[in-house]
Amino acid sequence: MATADSVRAIAPGGTVGILGGGQLGRMLAMAAARLGLKCAIYAPEADSPAFQVASSHVVADYQDHDALARFARGVDVVTYEFENVPGDAASVLSALKSVRPNPKALSVIQDRFDEKSFARNLGIATAPFALITSDATLREGLQSTRTPSVLKTARLGYDGKGQRIVRSDDQLLPAWNELKRVPCILEGFVDFTRELSVVAARGMDGRVACYDLVENRHESHILRTTLAPARGPQGLAVEAKRIAARLLEAFDYIGVMAVELFETRDGRLLVNEIAPRVHNSGHWTIDGCIVSQFEQHIRAVCGWPLGDPARHSDAVMTNLLGDEAATWAEHAAAPATGVHLYGKSAARPGRKMGHVTKLYPLGTRPDQ
Amino acid sequence: MATADSVRAIAPGGTVGILGGGQLGRMLAMAAARLGLKCAIYAPEADSPAFQVASSHVVADYQDHDALARFARGVDVVTYEFENVPGDAASVLSALKSVRPNPKALSVIQDRFDEKSFARNLGIATAPFALITSDATLREGLQSTRTPSVLKTARLGYDGKGQRIVRSDDQLLPAWNELKRVPCILEGFVDFTRELSVVAARGMDGRVACYDLVENRHESHILRTTLAPARGPQGLAVEAKRIAARLLEAFDYIGVMAVELFETRDGRLLVNEIAPRVHNSGHWTIDGCIVSQFEQHIRAVCGWPLGDPARHSDAVMTNLLGDEAATWAEHAAAPATGVHLYGKSAARPGRKMGHVTKLYPLGTRPDQ
Repeated sequence: MATADSVRAIAPGGTVGILGGGQLGRMLAMAAARLGLKCAIYAPEADSPAFQVASSHVVADYQDHDALARFARGVDVVTYEFENVPGDAASVLSALKSVRPNPKALSVIQDRFDEKSFARNLGIATAPFALITSDATLREGLQSTRTPSVLKTARLGYDGKGQRIVRSDDQLLPAWNELKRVPCILEGFVDFTRELSVVAARGMDGRVACYDLVENRHESHILRTTLAPARGPQGLAVEAKRIAARLLEAFDYIGVMAVELFETRDGRLLVNEIAPRVHNSGHWTIDGCIVSQFEQHIRAVCGWPLGDPARHSDAVMTNLLGDEAATWAEHAAAPATGVHLYGKSAARPGRKMGHVTKLYPLGTRPDQ
Repeated sequence: MATADSVRAIAPGGTVGILGGGQLGRMLAMAAARLGLKCAIYAPEADSPAFQVASSHVVADYQDHDALARFARGVDVVTYEFENVPGDAASVLSALKSVRPNPKALSVIQDRFDEKSFARNLGIATAPFALITSDATLREGLQSTRTPSVLKTARLGYDGKGQRIVRSDDQLLPAWNELKRVPCILEGFVDFTRELSVVAARGMDGRVACYDLVENRHESHILRTTLAPARGPQGLAVEAKRIAARLLEAFDYIGVMAVELFETRDGRLLVNEIAPRVHNSGHWTIDGCIVSQFEQHIRAVCGWPLGDPARHSDAVMTNLLGDEAATWAEHAAAPATGVHLYGKSAARPGRKMGHVTKLYPLGTRPDQ
């Protein structure tokens, strides 16, 4: 089974180029090392955590096309840890080496309107949404997407930045003005009971592997805890995995993707966001599965067979934010607990400094 | 509970110095990275696999005292991946920084006679053995340790090198001549049914944590397969852990130690070898436990609380030797299987290139 695929696979000893040097790039590099692959990291910050575990790195801006080209020539494939890779950087790189996942997926997902339209066109449910680019579309938006709603910049938003809650129609124009009248989408409020996500991968052979559906708890728009697996009926997990597989195939996607979902009060799943990368809600897979999301992504972009995504244990993953990282010794002493720290020096409030994963034998995690 | 110990612990951001850049150093560095610790590797070979995953490295001989001193000044603690660290290198380093495990344990274990005498003096059973340093001790050895037996150089032996089988009394002198009349020990043959091992750690707080007793299969003196846990009665595992704990305490040891054991036909355990380091028969812990032997060693030498050594899954670990590493794609496609490749370029016959671990739910591993 390996013969046909391994011809175009990047063999052990090859080098994976990763754009971005944060904790996701770091954990990708560690996963690549497990497989005997080297990593080269490209990041603008000289103290990027991923540099500490990579065999080489480049410190340069994403606008530096010469540096990007040199980087591409020194690696066998290019991937990335974040969705906001500038489009022209992706173009420079993909002229020289395969960029996986492909830049088209990146380009669609970088725009909230394109992303949600893409899902809707596949028959996948989302919250109601409208594009706001002018006073006219603003008025139309209020009709198609009733308040209360959320106004979000179409591009470059994460962790709740670039968002305004719009409680009544008259709040929309001031909110849009605050966001400097850049293209936005207005999203109708969803009466959801839970936030869920599914992390899935597609390999170069077209196979799809999904990790278990998980349940996420946020605080101040930042992920706090992931429960793996999500509580509740198996049918929900089947539906979530079906959605993820549809998206992966429609994008002709290679690599790991995370799909954030809302479960509505009447039990439906709506796609909230798509992340074209490894995802915080998949960190539990390092300890809960034989092949983590990070290794899965490396396998996919290198043309390896995907690994087994089955979980061997139930898990609760909790982020260590800001100065919570100072509690490392307490977590290190806890039973059945894995401690992961990202090598960041400054513990700014809300900054993701590490995470801990507590394992439970299959089917024994207490509901919490 | 963390407060008292964390005062003298090396906090995240600190640097662990590791002597030796092979696969054990590499996996130690990867485990340190998980905890937010940096690693500096010291090794004589410019293409050492551990360099690829460490934040810094030094290429120099173990006899280069200036390089050793510079290395020691740049790290917070020194440890090692191999037992044959020269005694004077250990002295140079320990004058500047804590060396853990302590050089005394290293010095005893580097000499097979001292090692076995140490065990015997603790009341721990070994095969019969005698020191051979002269024609007179050779004759005495034949009386105390009857043939068939094995003649081994007292120092610097591993994987069956520096050993001669002595089937009858008249073969002893020629064998010793072949080994150039260096100090040797003569070990009586043990009628053993199985080779077992236990990997255990002792922390700076004196606590001991033992992984499960495992069963090892060798081919041509090289480990082929580890079954975790060992088959058979629980009492055997309790006894093995008791032996490991005695040794750790007697050496005032900090870090991971492996104890290789023979099970005799009448069900007794004899200590065969002590390895003052992480060990091939503990590689299954990366995939089978929340805290691997590599992380456990890093935790111990950095003064962290030891991690939970309980296994969450049964495991079978198989080494990939020499050109077997070319089968990576086949293993990567197998269910419940973790693939580990060490980043070595030349696949010389018998060279440890990687390993694969297959997991089974607790208690379901087929006997094999």
